Amino acid sequence: MPETAITDLSSTTRTTVTRKKDRAATDRAALHAVLDAGLVCHLGMVTGTGAPMVLPTGYGRDGDTLYLHGSTGATSMRAGAEGPEVCVTVTLLDAIIYARSVNNHSMNYRSAVVYGRPRHVTGREEKLHGLRVLTDHLAPGSWEHARAVNDKELAAVTVLALDLTEASVKMRSAGVIDEPEDVEAATAWAGVLPVHTGFGEPQSDPLLPEGTALPEHVSLRRPALRPDPA
Amino acid sequence: MPETAITDLSSTTRTTVTRKKDRAATDRAALHAVLDAGLVCHLGMVTGTGAPMVLPTGYGRDGDTLYLHGSTGATSMRAGAEGPEVCVTVTLLDAIIYARSVNNHSMNYRSAVVYGRPRHVTGREEKLHGLRVLTDHLAPGSWEHARAVNDKELAAVTVLALDLTEASVKMRSAGVIDEPEDVEAATAWAGVLPVHTGFGEPQSDPLLPEGTALPEHVSLRRPALRPDPA
Repeated sequence: MPETAITDLSSTTRTTVTRKKDRAATDRAALHAVLDAGLVCHLGMVTGTGAPMVLPTGYGRDGDTLYLHGSTGATSMRAGAEGPEVCVTVTLLDAIIYARSVNNHSMNYRSAVVYGRPRHVTGREEKLHGLRVLTDHLAPGSWEHARAVNDKELAAVTVLALDLTEASVKMRSAGVIDEPEDVEAATAWAGVLPVHTGFGEPQSDPLLPEGTALPEHVSLRRPALRPDPA
Repeated sequence: MPETAITDLSSTTRTTVTRKKDRAATDRAALHAVLDAGLVCHLGMVTGTGAPMVLPTGYGRDGDTLYLHGSTGATSMRAGAEGPEVCVTVTLLDAIIYARSVNNHSMNYRSAVVYGRPRHVTGREEKLHGLRVLTDHLAPGSWEHARAVNDKELAAVTVLALDLTEASVKMRSAGVIDEPEDVEAATAWAGVLPVHTGFGEPQSDPLLPEGTALPEHVSLRRPALRPDPA
């Protein structure tokens, strides 16, 4: 996506800004905000043959640690568990920008990119903590409400921990940016079409006993998932 | 994400199913449907140091060709233009699955993963065609409505073409899948919380002449962006 503001939260080459620097700088809080607003990340790995592989997966953040999980059978987690470098990207699409020229069409978005070698979490306490962080991100309130993870389930799941040390945030949040001559010509409409993601009506599982109430941690989860940045 | 149905649309090792095969098989039409329903893809590349890099970018599909673009200055496009392997992933999140146990929480989603070596489109006609496909995907109707791409703009943009030969589709669209003893115990709510993405109210650019009408290709783009699969 062209025209991005990039915040470099480290000083390595790959998170150094190589593109336009004319948008507002953000900081580590912006990284946290993007990660907290997303629900799915894209986990990039390099396969045994040296090719890239990108798969969606769940995640959760605790301070400057990102937890990732999956069953131990998943290719993505096996690769991650062996300690190679990964890249985790979370993108929130906020709007489509209709410009007066095709060339200036764009998107508003917020994106976080994290690089590192995830640590395979093996200790029981930290593994449970990681699962709690993952659950709190995907389904806040479920850790307290649902039946806890038992030993067999704990053994079958892989939890990875990735430091947020090497990371960058990119975003575009401007309106239409057109050439002056196109603005003058005024031959086309231009504007911003917001993209909103939110939750629909919860659907109770048909196997629940009749009259089972919808708990508040679900019923109150109704605001837009991705509020536009202030 | 655990518990996925995977459709292998090729026969290479990396798109061979390695996980549960108990969900409905889909076909090439499903791949096209996922790609057409998304707006942003995640482009995975391998950097010069052998590390993975995953960046969001726009795309568009024409038959079994995926077009990707960006300014020639973007790291992602430079890498792609040199012909190395990429992985392009498009993910649509459809629902959060609240189970009776923490362990069976899940997500409903549709995901397409495409592998290949993108071709750098250099011919003027195909480059314009690729830009049209990209524009029709991001902002249908804008190609006809907005000012056309001029030679200078055409020279400044990079268009990549990626064959959809090696690709897979994964999806989960089931309801809650719990352990029989948890269903019996009935100590927790369980259900499906749909996730919807759609468009908000179009915001006209303040620099438009007063009274500029909202064109139909924008005003009619109001249904949910990601309808649940039938």
